[in-house]
Amino acid sequence: MSLILTFLGKGGSGRTTIAIAAAKKLASQGKRVLLAVQDTGFALDLLIETSVTHEVQQIAPNLDAVQFKASVLLERNWDEVKKLEAQYLRTPVIKDVYGQELVVLPGMDKALELNALREFDASGKYDAIIYDGSGDTTTLRMLGMPESLSWYSRRFGKLITESDLVKTVSPFLQPLIATVLNVSWTGDNFAAPTSQATNILEQGKAALADPKRLIAYLVTTDNPIAIATATYLWGSAQQVGLNVGGVIFNQTADTPTTEEFDPLTISTIPTTPLSSWQPLIDALPDFMQTVDVPKPIEFDVVNRQVKLFLPGFDKKQVKLTQSGPEVTIEAGDQRRNILLPPGLSGRTVSGAKFQQGYLIISF
Amino acid sequence: MSLILTFLGKGGSGRTTIAIAAAKKLASQGKRVLLAVQDTGFALDLLIETSVTHEVQQIAPNLDAVQFKASVLLERNWDEVKKLEAQYLRTPVIKDVYGQELVVLPGMDKALELNALREFDASGKYDAIIYDGSGDTTTLRMLGMPESLSWYSRRFGKLITESDLVKTVSPFLQPLIATVLNVSWTGDNFAAPTSQATNILEQGKAALADPKRLIAYLVTTDNPIAIATATYLWGSAQQVGLNVGGVIFNQTADTPTTEEFDPLTISTIPTTPLSSWQPLIDALPDFMQTVDVPKPIEFDVVNRQVKLFLPGFDKKQVKLTQSGPEVTIEAGDQRRNILLPPGLSGRTVSGAKFQQGYLIISF
Repeated sequence: MSLILTFLGKGGSGRTTIAIAAAKKLASQGKRVLLAVQDTGFALDLLIETSVTHEVQQIAPNLDAVQFKASVLLERNWDEVKKLEAQYLRTPVIKDVYGQELVVLPGMDKALELNALREFDASGKYDAIIYDGSGDTTTLRMLGMPESLSWYSRRFGKLITESDLVKTVSPFLQPLIATVLNVSWTGDNFAAPTSQATNILEQGKAALADPKRLIAYLVTTDNPIAIATATYLWGSAQQVGLNVGGVIFNQTADTPTTEEFDPLTISTIPTTPLSSWQPLIDALPDFMQTVDVPKPIEFDVVNRQVKLFLPGFDKKQVKLTQSGPEVTIEAGDQRRNILLPPGLSGRTVSGAKFQQGYLIISF
Repeated sequence: MSLILTFLGKGGSGRTTIAIAAAKKLASQGKRVLLAVQDTGFALDLLIETSVTHEVQQIAPNLDAVQFKASVLLERNWDEVKKLEAQYLRTPVIKDVYGQELVVLPGMDKALELNALREFDASGKYDAIIYDGSGDTTTLRMLGMPESLSWYSRRFGKLITESDLVKTVSPFLQPLIATVLNVSWTGDNFAAPTSQATNILEQGKAALADPKRLIAYLVTTDNPIAIATATYLWGSAQQVGLNVGGVIFNQTADTPTTEEFDPLTISTIPTTPLSSWQPLIDALPDFMQTVDVPKPIEFDVVNRQVKLFLPGFDKKQVKLTQSGPEVTIEAGDQRRNILLPPGLSGRTVSGAKFQQGYLIISF
């Protein structure tokens, strides 16, 4: 297991530079580090002064680097899909489609990157993985996938299984399935892959909830638009359950006197000339140290309360609904469905208030 | 029909500022303009000095603005999905899922934004739509969706229809479908929605291919990393068939002497203080003027050649395969499958060479 570290902030505030410096810092401390960067063409090579490709390669002692290429990741995963088809389907359909033909659709790239991060994490090869993604809501949606896929599965799974539709068609399904599948539907054949998929989602949710496994830092300059973007991403990160460990003020001489980021720790990085890494590395926080950050969500069953940390938003900008079986919180462009624990489950919301960056919902 | 204008370039090079200035310029020329911006929270409000929400509102004479919010777009489209379910399915399943519960998965946001752009374009309300998206490969994948979805449909559609699987199950399908659907499968009920979907994809492809309908400009500063990113996005844009009309060098005093962007026209924008728009507006090119740009792809059946414009790439960085029924070009992280026209269809590639930014494939 690794610590996965990522950076959120406005484009141009120096996220990639900070990510490289963070990787160099951890590697110099003797940690085994992977720097994993989303596809940016050849621009990264200029910054890192070596060619980073879609194959993992060592670029310095203790430091590996890879540039994610969605088309290559898709090609590799396609072989797995074809193996599953051959295993389960009596007459394979997609076996003649080649991985190298496949075009990447929006969203596929992020699903593939998240899966690649999961595999690097599970490989045990790295103490830390620095992920330099788009650093905006796209990264948040990507890291929120285990939670959002679980929600789709529990919300729609139950509806479909218990629907009149499935009850009506089930007598027809038995002969159809027997004709189509290599294996019998009622057997244990599907228990293994189904529980494997559920496990992966559960492990992803557990990793996301643990700041020792996955943590984000905000990167900003003292430009007001960069600060506003970082604040917005901080609040939005809470909505997917992502812990934010601190703020890095880049290209800034003095410690800013802003209160926007309370209670986060602020690190100030001086402006440095290109390829002068040491002052930058020295100014970065100690990422391996456990940080005490506000939890995105806390349940207080005794007092019948749910506390959500939503910095940067006010009451007007947050929408609370309880139309389905769960409570939905909308803030910014992120929705969070909350599965209430026993003791609160089934109760209706009786009130909600904002207090010091927290939305407190009473039942 | 509108001219849809978008900007590609590294984050922080001033894409959003240029997009706002372009919108102001066109509106001052008497064009009816919509500025459509991806969700950036409240940072946009600082730049534009008014609050831009997910509802279209007029912010100046001739100038409307909207901030795309994926969760709101998803909620609206969900009602359409439920209507379709009620129309076709005998016992609806998803009717009890509320639009305001739905969580946005990676990729959904871009599909929804593209659909919203399509609807604004079809509304006839605007002469120009300025789309300020992420300006990177995510925007390219989004604009390439009509082409990539068409490819998935033609590649997998044929395979599935002609597969042994479908032949084997078809006797079982008739009673199943009769049980499930409100309408008869063999009737004309599905002809209308199917051809509507095909039409939307074909219209999207036609709009993308026409620089009078959809055009992108590169935005860069004179920073080498910003230039490398812009060059990479230029080449990658050709892969999805997106025409690039010119380069905007932002925050630059002199006209740069770079040859990287030949034969594109370069506009130079001086550094201006925040909210001093006029010098910026004056320095922008005339976006409504038809520009003569290299076509992303040209077929020459007589000489049995296909010419692809791929600036910024060299032969080593481009992969050409002919494993499936089409020819696949991979450059950067974008794949393009080429459906060969009659006269070339069925032939194998006999050679390929790079000449002045063009990949020339012979058959």
